[in-house]
Amino acid sequence: MTLALDTAAQNLLFREARTANAFTDEPVTDEQVRAIYDLVKNAPTAFNQQPLRVVLVRSPEARERLVGHMMENNKPKTSTAPLTAILATDHEFHEELPRLLPFAPDLKDTVFGERPVREQQGSFNASLQVGYFILGVRAAGLAAGPMTGYDAAGINKDFFPDGNHAVLTVVNIGRPAENAWFPERLPRLDYDEVVTTV
Amino acid sequence: MTLALDTAAQNLLFREARTANAFTDEPVTDEQVRAIYDLVKNAPTAFNQQPLRVVLVRSPEARERLVGHMMENNKPKTSTAPLTAILATDHEFHEELPRLLPFAPDLKDTVFGERPVREQQGSFNASLQVGYFILGVRAAGLAAGPMTGYDAAGINKDFFPDGNHAVLTVVNIGRPAENAWFPERLPRLDYDEVVTTV
Repeated sequence: MTLALDTAAQNLLFREARTANAFTDEPVTDEQVRAIYDLVKNAPTAFNQQPLRVVLVRSPEARERLVGHMMENNKPKTSTAPLTAILATDHEFHEELPRLLPFAPDLKDTVFGERPVREQQGSFNASLQVGYFILGVRAAGLAAGPMTGYDAAGINKDFFPDGNHAVLTVVNIGRPAENAWFPERLPRLDYDEVVTTV
Repeated sequence: MTLALDTAAQNLLFREARTANAFTDEPVTDEQVRAIYDLVKNAPTAFNQQPLRVVLVRSPEARERLVGHMMENNKPKTSTAPLTAILATDHEFHEELPRLLPFAPDLKDTVFGERPVREQQGSFNASLQVGYFILGVRAAGLAAGPMTGYDAAGINKDFFPDGNHAVLTVVNIGRPAENAWFPERLPRLDYDEVVTTV
């Protein structure tokens, strides 16, 4: 047992979980999303900046707008998933820093005073949080279907008219249907292709 | 029980785990790193691109070079951690795509033919994988201490002289020492500050 994580949890989060392309009709409740967030919020970001923001697209009107921005092959599943979430970086995350990093309130105006720094740092850290969120969906016993095929500028303009957010991914969430994925998982790189020692 | 993940696993990965700044002398073995990778490699990336690369800095000579690139406050812990890993994006990840995404071998030269696209896509997806990796370290019963305070250009030039990789974070790994972290976890944003519904 090289891992401390139990086998059931390994399977739930990593080994048996798959990216889903089809879902059952079972709803995903706000209570479930809250439980996911209350779990994954604990995972780390640099300077505790927590730049990820999540938009749950629930109304038929908003869903229709979102589907309009998706690439053709992503439209059907985004139309029918029990829940679709837009995950985005808040480029004004630094406004919360004095509260989130109380021992260094000056960072808001020094390190993070310039928008390009915030965009770069925020994008990296919100992307970490996307990784945590996907695993959090799986921790709730649900399947995630993250997508990057869409008109990002269109989503940003339509769903974040303040101009201060940038979509990172759109994620369908629900119970996987029988035909949710191909039988075979796509190949992964071998350890020796990824990890080197110096 | 809104979550399917058992409580022990929730605690190990999210609720009790913390970013560590001090470690015991217990070594971190290659077998442990292999177990971490073999777990987290399964988590998803867009188009299965898997752009993350990991350099384990084990030799005293390489460690000294790395410490030289770290900001002052990160030098002591990087000097003394049982293991330090450089996590980076491989901007030439597309070379492996025909094997990783066998049903769309043309993407290597179409969508991913241009370096700026690869840098943007690779950076996002490797950042997801950084999130998975940090949780994988915790899954091994170890603590991770990810850092972003360093001379990135210096690390890239020194450790990736091919010019095709970009460091995303440097992570200390080991068993947490008694004084590994502050008693109180830093505050997290509330659900209603992060999640909105439309």
